[in-house]
Amino acid sequence: MSVANAEHKDPILLTPGPLTTSLQTKQAMLRDWGSWDGDFNQITTRVRQHLLEIAHAGETHECVPLQGSGTFSVEAAIGTIVPRDGHVLVPMNGAYCQRIARICEYLGRRVSTHSYAEDQAISTSDIDRLLSADPSITHVAIVHCETSTGILNPLQDIAKVVAKHGKGLIIDAMSSFGAIEVDARVTPFDALVAASGKCIEGVPGMGFVLARRSVLEQCKGNAHSLALDLYDQWVYMQKTTQWRFTPPTHVVAALDQALQQYRAEGGLAARGARYAANCKQLIDGLAALGLRSFLPKEIQAPIIVTVHAPQHANYNFQAFYNAVKRQGFILYPGKLTTVETFRVGCMGHFGDEGMRGAIAAIANVLEEMQIATAVAA
Amino acid sequence: MSVANAEHKDPILLTPGPLTTSLQTKQAMLRDWGSWDGDFNQITTRVRQHLLEIAHAGETHECVPLQGSGTFSVEAAIGTIVPRDGHVLVPMNGAYCQRIARICEYLGRRVSTHSYAEDQAISTSDIDRLLSADPSITHVAIVHCETSTGILNPLQDIAKVVAKHGKGLIIDAMSSFGAIEVDARVTPFDALVAASGKCIEGVPGMGFVLARRSVLEQCKGNAHSLALDLYDQWVYMQKTTQWRFTPPTHVVAALDQALQQYRAEGGLAARGARYAANCKQLIDGLAALGLRSFLPKEIQAPIIVTVHAPQHANYNFQAFYNAVKRQGFILYPGKLTTVETFRVGCMGHFGDEGMRGAIAAIANVLEEMQIATAVAA
Ligand SMILES: Cc1ncc(COP(=O)(O)O)c(C=O)c1O
Ligand SMILES: Cc1ncc(COP(=O)(O)O)c(C=O)c1O
Repeated sequence: MSVANAEHKDPILLTPGPLTTSLQTKQAMLRDWGSWDGDFNQITTRVRQHLLEIAHAGETHECVPLQGSGTFSVEAAIGTIVPRDGHVLVPMNGAYCQRIARICEYLGRRVSTHSYAEDQAISTSDIDRLLSADPSITHVAIVHCETSTGILNPLQDIAKVVAKHGKGLIIDAMSSFGAIEVDARVTPFDALVAASGKCIEGVPGMGFVLARRSVLEQCKGNAHSLALDLYDQWVYMQKTTQWRFTPPTHVVAALDQALQQYRAEGGLAARGARYAANCKQLIDGLAALGLRSFLPKEIQAPIIVTVHAPQHANYNFQAFYNAVKRQGFILYPGKLTTVETFRVGCMGHFGDEGMRGAIAAIANVLEEMQIATAVAA
Repeated sequence: MSVANAEHKDPILLTPGPLTTSLQTKQAMLRDWGSWDGDFNQITTRVRQHLLEIAHAGETHECVPLQGSGTFSVEAAIGTIVPRDGHVLVPMNGAYCQRIARICEYLGRRVSTHSYAEDQAISTSDIDRLLSADPSITHVAIVHCETSTGILNPLQDIAKVVAKHGKGLIIDAMSSFGAIEVDARVTPFDALVAASGKCIEGVPGMGFVLARRSVLEQCKGNAHSLALDLYDQWVYMQKTTQWRFTPPTHVVAALDQALQQYRAEGGLAARGARYAANCKQLIDGLAALGLRSFLPKEIQAPIIVTVHAPQHANYNFQAFYNAVKRQGFILYPGKLTTVETFRVGCMGHFGDEGMRGAIAAIANVLEEMQIATAVAA
């Protein structure tokens, strides 16, 4: 019996969202709310305010929440913020930047991409050069933590360069927001996108965009979609305190509860430190079992770790996954096409003991499957 | 103390969704699910199957669930099913048909509208005539129960006429699906749209489209949006059993639970009968208090009732709403522009006693506010 099962009756999710939330957060969903009612609208207002504060963006930005998964908010941000004759530069080092480029194509927004290997961070000097070379570019869209590998891209430097060129920056901070500092007072951006079920440790079902107020005010008529029109969503919410269309009331109430726990834990500094400790423990623990992580330490975000699969005839991801699950932990498949990997998330409502249990479970399973990888063995 | 408060510690929602769900349904959200995990994907598969069965559509249609509110699924259905050079006829007798027309405009789909007074049902012979007069029309999009008033449009007759002309029919059945019969074997449609938090009595956060398989197969490349591309969602789900983007796992688990209770209650016949009884009790009870419903009985759907506001100087919706809320019931504002009304929903996890309590609460409040409307008084 693993540590996890002693604490939780359900498996711990070592996944990049949906993730393991606290019981308190889930219990906030044991009530039905009228979406027109003042009690619920106060929750919405409080959540929006709180999300802005995390990025120190209350003075300059607006928080526009949106129904749906994180991708819905990424698409809404691009469709609303980038005018129809805009031109978006997307530096690419993983699946989520590829998705941004694909969204631009769907939306008929002109897009230029610049590709990197999957184990390389975006280079700020490349962005500088590309913006100088093509003045028709109006926006740069980047992924902060590329969850498909776990790379942390150098947001602060990129933001400075984009601002120097007078262009707009759109940040997909889905898997980093709340755990890795983004301070709107020193990191200029037009839009930052994240979602309820990630580092804030709410349940999935709602995204949100922190949009620069002065930019958002100019966005009327840009959007390609009624449902994904952030401008319309924002104007309606300002006027009524309500959502335009039925909000996922239970998800919003859970996010409110999760945000209160976030604050109680010590906010971003504490959340980031906990995930970083999880990440270090994980990498060290797996290394002791002979399992190598895919990324060099310098660009590894403390969010999710890509691990090389054991090079052994007995290894097969599905069997490995099922065996680790029986011990109470849910792993995540790799997303690389060239090398066989699996991923382990560092995020969610668990700490030290959770990670220790996970490493022990992986060790057990490797033994069970007779996969001898241990360097020390 | 009202009956409601004796049974439930939270107010009963007399609203058209989000509505009052059972405790069991909410308790299904007390667990976190990995979105890649087989256990969760089995839930998704079961829910899709069950939703198809309700419309007897398993042979002919596919259920494609979508993250977001119901409007997201309405937009996704139009964007995916109607080709870019399509032409949509929208007969209009309320706010939700207006929204369909607005979506068509956003999407650049040609749209023709035909307007009715808000207390009139769509006329089948008008549709017949309009389709004969303009052969460029490719699709008709209608709202089954126009929730803004409570009108039930004559779906069966309209579907026959649309099929006679060989055109596609898209049905917004948001507030009727599961309570008012739609049988795909006798009512031809290309797409029927509804959502988790309506008559099935789940929580809000997910919509779904029952799309004719032979039509859906032809829809590649139609969509204006990645997030709202039902074809892409469907193909990915068929291949992997998973959702393309993070599903609202807790909402899906609650819907699965709500569907089991739906079946246990006796399916559509029982659900429809319960709402019809609620509706009759409500209209009769309010009539006894001197409150007149807006619609003639023949076109009143047993879903939501629009009620004329008392003609009295002491009446003011917000004060009335707050007072009824203190007695444990949440009403819904009217949506008509010309006459002052309020609305009372007949849907949700409550029966006889709930409605009796609601009528008693309204009676108390009218007395409290010294609004003498009782015809018998
Ligand atoms: C960086 C990043 N962007 C976008 C997404 C997409 O979010 P969703 O799956 O909620 O649509 C994810 C999901 O993990 C992500 O990590
Ligand atoms: C008939 C109808 N269509 C569309 C909608 C919109 O659904 P949502 O508010 O979930 O976007 C509703 C909501 O009540 C409805 O009743």
